[in-house]
Amino acid sequence: MPAVGSSLPRKDAWDKVTGKAKYIDDYSYPNIVHISTVRSPVAYGKLGEIDFTEAKKIPGFIGHYTYNDIPGKNINPLVYTDQPFLANGYVRFYGEPIALIAAETPEAAEEAARRTKVQITPLEPVLSIDQAISESCTKIYSQDNTFTRYKIEKGAIDKGFAKARHIFENTYETPYQEHAYLETQGMIAVPGIEDTMTVYGSMQCPFYVHDAVSQILGLSKNKVKIVQATTGGGFGGKEDFPSILAGHAALVAKLTERPTKLVYHREEDIIASSKRHPGLIKIKIGTDDDGKILAAKIDYYLDGGAYSTLSPIVLWRGTVHALGPYVCDNVLINSAAVATNKVPCGAYRGFGSPQVIFAAETILDEIAHELKIDPIDLRRRNILTPGTTTVTSQEIGESCGLTETLDKAFEKANWKTKWSRPETKTDKIRKGIGVSTIYYGVGLGAGGKHLDRAGANMVLLRDGSVQCAVGNTEMGQGARTVLAQIAADSLGIPYNNIHVIETDTSLVPDSGPTVASRTTLMSGNAIVSAAKDLRSRIMPLIADLLQTTADDAELIDGKAFSKKNPPDKGGKSITFEDLTREFYNRRLMPSSFGWFIAPDTGFDQKNGQGNAYFTYSYCTNIAEVTVDTETGEIKVDTIIAAHDMGKAINPQQVEGQIQGGTLQGVGYCVMEEIRHDKNGKMLNDAFATYILPTFEDAPDIQPIIVEHPYSSGPFGAKGFGEVPLMGIAPAVANAVFNATGKRIRKLPVKPECLMEK
Amino acid sequence: MPAVGSSLPRKDAWDKVTGKAKYIDDYSYPNIVHISTVRSPVAYGKLGEIDFTEAKKIPGFIGHYTYNDIPGKNINPLVYTDQPFLANGYVRFYGEPIALIAAETPEAAEEAARRTKVQITPLEPVLSIDQAISESCTKIYSQDNTFTRYKIEKGAIDKGFAKARHIFENTYETPYQEHAYLETQGMIAVPGIEDTMTVYGSMQCPFYVHDAVSQILGLSKNKVKIVQATTGGGFGGKEDFPSILAGHAALVAKLTERPTKLVYHREEDIIASSKRHPGLIKIKIGTDDDGKILAAKIDYYLDGGAYSTLSPIVLWRGTVHALGPYVCDNVLINSAAVATNKVPCGAYRGFGSPQVIFAAETILDEIAHELKIDPIDLRRRNILTPGTTTVTSQEIGESCGLTETLDKAFEKANWKTKWSRPETKTDKIRKGIGVSTIYYGVGLGAGGKHLDRAGANMVLLRDGSVQCAVGNTEMGQGARTVLAQIAADSLGIPYNNIHVIETDTSLVPDSGPTVASRTTLMSGNAIVSAAKDLRSRIMPLIADLLQTTADDAELIDGKAFSKKNPPDKGGKSITFEDLTREFYNRRLMPSSFGWFIAPDTGFDQKNGQGNAYFTYSYCTNIAEVTVDTETGEIKVDTIIAAHDMGKAINPQQVEGQIQGGTLQGVGYCVMEEIRHDKNGKMLNDAFATYILPTFEDAPDIQPIIVEHPYSSGPFGAKGFGEVPLMGIAPAVANAVFNATGKRIRKLPVKPECLMEK
Repeated sequence: MPAVGSSLPRKDAWDKVTGKAKYIDDYSYPNIVHISTVRSPVAYGKLGEIDFTEAKKIPGFIGHYTYNDIPGKNINPLVYTDQPFLANGYVRFYGEPIALIAAETPEAAEEAARRTKVQITPLEPVLSIDQAISESCTKIYSQDNTFTRYKIEKGAIDKGFAKARHIFENTYETPYQEHAYLETQGMIAVPGIEDTMTVYGSMQCPFYVHDAVSQILGLSKNKVKIVQATTGGGFGGKEDFPSILAGHAALVAKLTERPTKLVYHREEDIIASSKRHPGLIKIKIGTDDDGKILAAKIDYYLDGGAYSTLSPIVLWRGTVHALGPYVCDNVLINSAAVATNKVPCGAYRGFGSPQVIFAAETILDEIAHELKIDPIDLRRRNILTPGTTTVTSQEIGESCGLTETLDKAFEKANWKTKWSRPETKTDKIRKGIGVSTIYYGVGLGAGGKHLDRAGANMVLLRDGSVQCAVGNTEMGQGARTVLAQIAADSLGIPYNNIHVIETDTSLVPDSGPTVASRTTLMSGNAIVSAAKDLRSRIMPLIADLLQTTADDAELIDGKAFSKKNPPDKGGKSITFEDLTREFYNRRLMPSSFGWFIAPDTGFDQKNGQGNAYFTYSYCTNIAEVTVDTETGEIKVDTIIAAHDMGKAINPQQVEGQIQGGTLQGVGYCVMEEIRHDKNGKMLNDAFATYILPTFEDAPDIQPIIVEHPYSSGPFGAKGFGEVPLMGIAPAVANAVFNATGKRIRKLPVKPECLMEK
Repeated sequence: MPAVGSSLPRKDAWDKVTGKAKYIDDYSYPNIVHISTVRSPVAYGKLGEIDFTEAKKIPGFIGHYTYNDIPGKNINPLVYTDQPFLANGYVRFYGEPIALIAAETPEAAEEAARRTKVQITPLEPVLSIDQAISESCTKIYSQDNTFTRYKIEKGAIDKGFAKARHIFENTYETPYQEHAYLETQGMIAVPGIEDTMTVYGSMQCPFYVHDAVSQILGLSKNKVKIVQATTGGGFGGKEDFPSILAGHAALVAKLTERPTKLVYHREEDIIASSKRHPGLIKIKIGTDDDGKILAAKIDYYLDGGAYSTLSPIVLWRGTVHALGPYVCDNVLINSAAVATNKVPCGAYRGFGSPQVIFAAETILDEIAHELKIDPIDLRRRNILTPGTTTVTSQEIGESCGLTETLDKAFEKANWKTKWSRPETKTDKIRKGIGVSTIYYGVGLGAGGKHLDRAGANMVLLRDGSVQCAVGNTEMGQGARTVLAQIAADSLGIPYNNIHVIETDTSLVPDSGPTVASRTTLMSGNAIVSAAKDLRSRIMPLIADLLQTTADDAELIDGKAFSKKNPPDKGGKSITFEDLTREFYNRRLMPSSFGWFIAPDTGFDQKNGQGNAYFTYSYCTNIAEVTVDTETGEIKVDTIIAAHDMGKAINPQQVEGQIQGGTLQGVGYCVMEEIRHDKNGKMLNDAFATYILPTFEDAPDIQPIIVEHPYSSGPFGAKGFGEVPLMGIAPAVANAVFNATGKRIRKLPVKPECLMEK
């Protein structure tokens, strides 16, 4: 039975449900040093003296470390080079790490950190996008408080609007979103022999951590090894930020020559780690009478926080996706990521897209309403289909299942029966239905092209079991299971023979980050390539043993046979165990490296035109809600989620991703937000105050799998992991409008918003 | 400057001299379980009940484990399958492991082991070769107490003796030799997620340990990972035996679900771990008047101890080398490894050769003396040279520097002046000089052909540093340094850019054991192959950057240039760092697996004829001694050691190997022995009673490097590590004869032997 396409049990399920899985805080080392972080108590200020006198008095105190103690470079190596591991000269956000304290116990380290006195001369902080881009604002970054700007220019925007019969224009705002992974950030650093350093931890991107640790210690990369421990969720929050923690842990390990441990409490994790960027989106769309989009002008701003981190590429992705999956010949998109004195924002499932998707899908709903067109119909008239082009003039080719997702969701939702205009609804408790359609570029695309490759290392062991190592990580999304399924079928052996080991930078070369829904496609293809190489030695062996040609030899599900003379026609077959024994007897090379380079993309940054991504995934979400018009209480009843991911390698996991992403999208839509006081201090740094959806808030989620295979994907698969979250907020907000006639242009949609006049 | 051929600093030197290197006992894990071993107090007996009642009362006691608790198979998987991890039914040698005790501290575990009562019905043990092969002896193994027999038959032995003018015949005996590595055996086993097990330890052969741990736990091999810790010496003693310890540690780790530690005290290490086999050699040689060897008949017995372990292959190597490096057309060699109720013997530098070499080189000296031929001249008349054949009828081809080693040693020793017949010497204190010439098959040869392959894994990192992983181990012999030199030159980058990481079974496929002087050649060639593969992507890149052809592109010492237009003629050059940056920009595959299969050997086991090894290393040792004829005191003054190892990759390390091997040979010759009481209990299990040479006993060692390159070796290198020890004993014993006229045919040569009438 083929492994691909089957809902095989997750490789990590048993350990996770029985509590045997070991997260970083479950590990320790003898003689370990515990680290606590001295943080900035202000959003912006000039750093003065740091007084450790009282800290040193704490029993168990080992040492204190500032930027001055860094043997390498005090810069986290990301896109730009502006973020120090430890503040030097200035502090730029509330909670920024200033110094590290090492002690024999976590409690002693924390107490010593508390007793450390930092002299800071406070400066006036910049706390919002509006403030940052106003001309009079203090400049905290560059000449204009802007990290990055992009422009997409297609056709002639003025002519487009001139032709349009209707113009729609509005401004939309989206909030912070906290990743709220189950496991907080944590690292253990262990100094090794010969000036080496190994760092274990919770992370998405071991190769980023590898760069960071090499950099802070001033070590060549071959002296540093990063091993991912079982990771309790990432969602983008463990993309760039773990580099900082790992740098801190490694620094103290290097200086004390002892293993170190640094695991964040939830509060400091919320204060100091990255978030989804707040967004400000101004959209102007011109259509004809049928709702056909003729011109679109979008200004998209992200609040990047104090350092650029991943903002340049988060912004790029959002910019490219700003109009959504719609055909339009005249487009002008301008975007900017601006600096503020708040926690640096970074990656979060969707990576700059949910913000613009909320705006675009809402305005689409507004257009439909104004033009009195069914929102589904409006989409049918505008969506991308093969042969059409995106805002970057990329022609959509194979594997575009958007129409099918729309059709299937429409049917499943019984939209025809359920949808009616909001004016027709008068009950106190009202039902509403809303839709969103989206597309999402798989992989890093033209914006991260040089990183978009992945390796796999496959070793056939003497007992016929196979070890696979990949450069992407398992963080709960099921990567190791899906990759084992791909390995099994591409090699032709049973799923149970495959073990995909924990990601370790010494096993596989830099395979880029585990982000951008790229793992199944990139690491999957690397595995296919490794299996192909291994089969190039296995098939001639089979041929030799069965006295046939390599072309006639076949290996499926661990059974080798001749295609011309198969076992069911009386032909001989060889078990994989016997085959492996002979493979070893002949001393054939039992290992192989697979390598996959993402298909070509090409992009002209000047006018933002070109092939932004090598392929796209597509989705239609239909939300049903019940609104109490007296209290404003919103209940999300149902989400229908129809997704084209090319091929569902493991359908149950696809549904799991849909379940999880949908709930995260519901949270983003109706409850999650972070608030700051007027000085930039974060006010809700705990799960008591940062409200998340629970199972009680979960709608009835109805996944629909649509498979339009992508010929360059493993078994036709594209990427998919982030997509389930992205269209939820506008579908729900549109459903709320459909129920109430109240248009929400600023997330989250809270009861009080519905109560506003 | 090329790295190969330079005495570059050892990669591990700094850590080792400063005490930073971490051996297995320097590691621990939180919540670790300590293991102690309950051992047989008799040499042979029937195992009855084991009573843990008193053991359980010890505070900190965790559990007890016997063969009954093993989830997998209770057999250490080696050549044969006769050795249990834990005794079942019978105990077969004094010190054999019967049960394991787990406790919270090492002391508690040891006390509990002491208090464990084992009921054993003692049986009459077999304690010597003579006893084992006598017909009346109890059979403790098979029908004839013999593990293995071999025969080599070349020409017609009877005709050879018939033609001979002189017949020489004698019996020689060699003792046990304890490896006396600085670090005792030790393992730490750590259970991982998803039913995995990682074992760290002091070992030579991680892949043997991998087999053993999979076997005892009943786990597929892809769930087991073995990592070698810094290893404080092996000399063969950490070839097979670590599998037993690792099995024990992993068993308890599996059953307690906690990390475990098992580090032997010196005494139990001496009692329980393998030794050099005692040998009994009967030689009969026929010569013409000129000393030309016409016929040789050799019977060679090894005392294998209670289990076969590596005896079958130790015996094979000894059998093949039994006559030494001499031409003889008529040969009959019979050999047998017999079973006794003593500790199983195994690998020890030289692997069954030093025993026969002592016999053969002594009888050569006897022939020279009797025929009144200078011992050097006698050798000149008989030694192997290109075009001659060995006892297995293998024709000696390229890379035979034996004559040159003999010439150079002869000259350096000033032999002509120093040598005179013993009858001429009358002083109380007498000087003597002796010689030995030897050859040694590199690698596993025909006897271990299917294991004779090796892999290497090379990764080019983004900063231009390179990580190399190999399947062979560093155990103090300098492998990682030599392999880094080979990697540097075969890639064309500086030595300092290379880091060879600790051997880990998850990094490189099964590369066979680290034995048989095979590492430089096998892993070295695997590295050359990996580098070649990596260069297949680097060279076209250079060509592209310099606008030339790949054939014209060159990379030496980290500098890329065009051969036609080199930098010294004004051509452009590119640094390796720049090259690597571009390599990464283009997303070329930065990793490669190298694989090397040993050149072909072929052997007919029936008559012992064929190509036993793919190449041989050669050596001449000349020893000078001073003997006090009144006390019998022997001082080894000088050893001249001329070695042909093909190419000295690191001359200083070659000299280091010569220094160490020579001293071990001196110990083997003049002091080391193990004694047993009449019941088979070992009497000298401590360094207070097992006498080893110290620096005070070290002669003036004068290495001579002779390089006859082997075209299939990396940069011409063959293997060499074991050779320095092997010819020392006969050279010294022959020098003692030369000083005193007293012929020693049983090692060690002790003062009391010289005093015997």
